Amino acid sequence: MPQRARLIMLQDAIQAVWPTNTWRSCHVVVAVSGGADSVALLRGLAELHRRTSGSGELIVAHFNHGLRGEHSDGDQSWVAQLAQTLNLRGEFGQPAESEQLDTEQSARDARYAFLLNTAERCGARYIATAHTADDQVETVLMRVLRGSGIDGLTGIPRVRSLSASVSVVRPLLAVRREEIESYLQQLDQPYRTDASNHESHFTRNWLRNELLPAIRERLPSDPDRSLLRLAEQANQWSELLESIVAPLVEQTVRVENHRLQFNLTLLADQPAIVVQQVARQAWRAAGWPEQGMGMADWERLSTAISGAEAGKFQLPGHVQVAREAQTLELFRGGFPENC
Amino acid sequence: MPQRARLIMLQDAIQAVWPTNTWRSCHVVVAVSGGADSVALLRGLAELHRRTSGSGELIVAHFNHGLRGEHSDGDQSWVAQLAQTLNLRGEFGQPAESEQLDTEQSARDARYAFLLNTAERCGARYIATAHTADDQVETVLMRVLRGSGIDGLTGIPRVRSLSASVSVVRPLLAVRREEIESYLQQLDQPYRTDASNHESHFTRNWLRNELLPAIRERLPSDPDRSLLRLAEQANQWSELLESIVAPLVEQTVRVENHRLQFNLTLLADQPAIVVQQVARQAWRAAGWPEQGMGMADWERLSTAISGAEAGKFQLPGHVQVAREAQTLELFRGGFPENC
Repeated sequence: MPQRARLIMLQDAIQAVWPTNTWRSCHVVVAVSGGADSVALLRGLAELHRRTSGSGELIVAHFNHGLRGEHSDGDQSWVAQLAQTLNLRGEFGQPAESEQLDTEQSARDARYAFLLNTAERCGARYIATAHTADDQVETVLMRVLRGSGIDGLTGIPRVRSLSASVSVVRPLLAVRREEIESYLQQLDQPYRTDASNHESHFTRNWLRNELLPAIRERLPSDPDRSLLRLAEQANQWSELLESIVAPLVEQTVRVENHRLQFNLTLLADQPAIVVQQVARQAWRAAGWPEQGMGMADWERLSTAISGAEAGKFQLPGHVQVAREAQTLELFRGGFPENC
Repeated sequence: MPQRARLIMLQDAIQAVWPTNTWRSCHVVVAVSGGADSVALLRGLAELHRRTSGSGELIVAHFNHGLRGEHSDGDQSWVAQLAQTLNLRGEFGQPAESEQLDTEQSARDARYAFLLNTAERCGARYIATAHTADDQVETVLMRVLRGSGIDGLTGIPRVRSLSASVSVVRPLLAVRREEIESYLQQLDQPYRTDASNHESHFTRNWLRNELLPAIRERLPSDPDRSLLRLAEQANQWSELLESIVAPLVEQTVRVENHRLQFNLTLLADQPAIVVQQVARQAWRAAGWPEQGMGMADWERLSTAISGAEAGKFQLPGHVQVAREAQTLELFRGGFPENC
């Protein structure tokens, strides 16, 4: 295939899921670690941006986790150089001195906080990140094995709102890593090796470098494609469930200060999965922490909603549950003595 | 733990999912290969049966695939001996001379045909098979990797109707293989090694003996449990979908000789996943073969149902599709020339 055709293909892939006319008048923050994926995203967006007339600006944002020692500083100045070459503004961040980025989650939280802060400071509407189809495959398989339930099989979302004014988008979510490498090769564009792996912990690397290759070798039926389709299907199922659950939450849940009330009359005949989703959304609406709630806790709460028995029990996060007749009441922080 | 307590535990596990009073008055065919799982099932059921008063009889059924050479005949006489020891009737079958059991599917079809035939001949209501939680884990993971969609993640069903009068039940579906081995050890009950693997082809054995052990070693979060829960959840989702789809099929699909008609008015605003399930159920109601239909074919059919464009195309199994205004018509065997 001639070089020109291939290059156009990657830009077409971006254009297909995130058409230029949706962002050409907005500022866009591009998260660039310096690894292959984010460098390809930046080159692709920069090329689309160059060809498009619009008032929006592309801003290169790089978070220096400092986890790779002197390599980290090397990554940063390399990305700064790339931004300059492309004639784009660069924004750089690092953890506060007090911050301990010793887990993948804390590193991720600090990075997203920096990206959101940068976007809000620059008046950007979007943050573009370079998650690929390979990241999606790994995420879905990991969630299958770690037990997220079907909800989690939806994988990495293509668009997700981070604040009232800023959304994160993943324009490369349908692009395979090998397409990215061949794109960069044809542009003769170098990238920082391993830079894109700084967030990959042990298990994720094992899944990427050992488990998935072993599966691909044995199953000629294209397991990557199976996992990507599973994510698509899970998204369709989630939308269906949402269309049933949203009006039910509206009708049956009351959120007050530290308190959730379920009117059980309308929930009695609903399927278990609907009841559980109503419970999750109510919990979220109350702004209570979900991390402590395991599958068994959600099931316990759902059973209390669907069942006929009165009684009291406690859930993680200091939440008291009390069931009386047709009302289930949840209170966070202990029941007040006199009411 | 004292021996008595452990033994009671396996029988409790059977009793919990398949209480004796549901089958004590029926004849039950127990499928016994001679491997650990089916021997444990037989011993468990025989013990429950012995303790229960009822008019039902347990019948030991063994299908001699002849795939293991002289071992196969050894398995058969071993199972005959076991049945005699337990004072139960034994029924034995083998492939017809013309039958080629050269694939896992053909061996499975022949075995189930024999079991169903035996059940009907003996007037049995149930066929009990010895699928375990480990089989379920393997099946769900295989379907995740091979791409069955969420429908397939429901895994092996606990009960499934085989004919108007006979159902297959799997009372050990929540029991782990290690519990079975410890049960047999405590009974001092031998079994035929490998006999239970005669249906396991290459890929399934790799998944059981290499892939799953590697995953268990790396993920301390109990991946088996995750996969079992996923199957449970997928079952809940399927029930929810069924409760939406069944009335829609009733209202929108007409099945006639070689012909399916969809009234599109009611289907236009339905979510994609609902439309696809309506299409699958209509196809099934027409008795058309599903094997040839891949995911892409189902999607094409769903798009024709939801979309606005008139047109004709063909689907696997010689099915012609024609869309006109508010009707979609499927015809199997080519459109007649003069209508």
